[in-house]
Amino acid sequence: MDKTRGNSKTIIAATSNSHKVREFQEILGPFGYHVLSAKEAGGMPDVVEDADTFLGNATKKAVETARALGQMVVADDSGLEVLALNGEPGVFSSRYAGEGGNDGRNLAKLLNKLQGIEDRRARFVCVIAVATPDGLVGTAEGQVTGRIALAPAGNGGFGYDPGFIPDGFDQTFGELPPEVKNRLSHRANALQNAIQNHLF
Amino acid sequence: MDKTRGNSKTIIAATSNSHKVREFQEILGPFGYHVLSAKEAGGMPDVVEDADTFLGNATKKAVETARALGQMVVADDSGLEVLALNGEPGVFSSRYAGEGGNDGRNLAKLLNKLQGIEDRRARFVCVIAVATPDGLVGTAEGQVTGRIALAPAGNGGFGYDPGFIPDGFDQTFGELPPEVKNRLSHRANALQNAIQNHLF
Repeated sequence: MDKTRGNSKTIIAATSNSHKVREFQEILGPFGYHVLSAKEAGGMPDVVEDADTFLGNATKKAVETARALGQMVVADDSGLEVLALNGEPGVFSSRYAGEGGNDGRNLAKLLNKLQGIEDRRARFVCVIAVATPDGLVGTAEGQVTGRIALAPAGNGGFGYDPGFIPDGFDQTFGELPPEVKNRLSHRANALQNAIQNHLF
Repeated sequence: MDKTRGNSKTIIAATSNSHKVREFQEILGPFGYHVLSAKEAGGMPDVVEDADTFLGNATKKAVETARALGQMVVADDSGLEVLALNGEPGVFSSRYAGEGGNDGRNLAKLLNKLQGIEDRRARFVCVIAVATPDGLVGTAEGQVTGRIALAPAGNGGFGYDPGFIPDGFDQTFGELPPEVKNRLSHRANALQNAIQNHLF
């Protein structure tokens, strides 16, 4: 939305997930961006993520946060889609094991469901939404294909990372160094597409 | 082709273009690869690039070099496609100004042809071919969209880089730092797709 590009530009990440803020910084840093969390920029509003698509939730988070802060912000909604489960957990990725769940329980539930299933193909999907305070929105998408591991491995990343092996690798996103994940990932892809589409 | 992946793996780049070898290293380094030029690995054979597609030329370079060296190699064929010129210079990118031409003359010819043309849209395309000595070949593709600058700018990169502004930016690939080009570029895209497709 802003085609000028100085040597350093600040971007506000509309998320209260500190892992996402860190990944935004790792991915966007080389392009000259400094990433600020919504909290650091004045406070992240409570946004109910009740849309049934990544696009819907990303847009909602971006629009409501931009309005609350009076500034342009970038939000992402992302999740894991497992082929043998018809795309589950999808938009429910972060609350797969229930609202009181956490990363470990979500992954445990998934691995349980996949016990005995040979087809482990899956993909991570990320939709980026950029919104201005007047409600102007732009979106971009990214994905990375791979397979679900038989057991969790590694402490890197977050979410389902210890259970996801990207195509071309034998290690999970939990095991691979961040500089590998942050070049390959659905989020890296989506953010690069956002830049290429002039969203920020 | 090889799904095992150690901490460091050597890849032979089937090219005599030192710029390409350097970019291969910059792009593949974070994934744990050490890139060796064909020259360092025993010598780059003379390959006549007479195919009429990037795929054809990349495959030819990879197959002939793998056979000559008796080892798996990675080749790329790449070029610039300008929309208003119906995809020119395309596969002729490196010899647009004639066989005795060079990067500067090629770009000068292109800018000349585009004088007064408002539609500057263009894309860089890269096809990666991986070949084994027995002739097994795998390929992957990447691209980056952008526009042709009004005049050359910057000394970075090579080829048409000083004349190409990637979408989302106001500077040419000749001006942008290598770590930006090597995340965005057609070559970065193609090599990441090659990894994701298990080509090496």
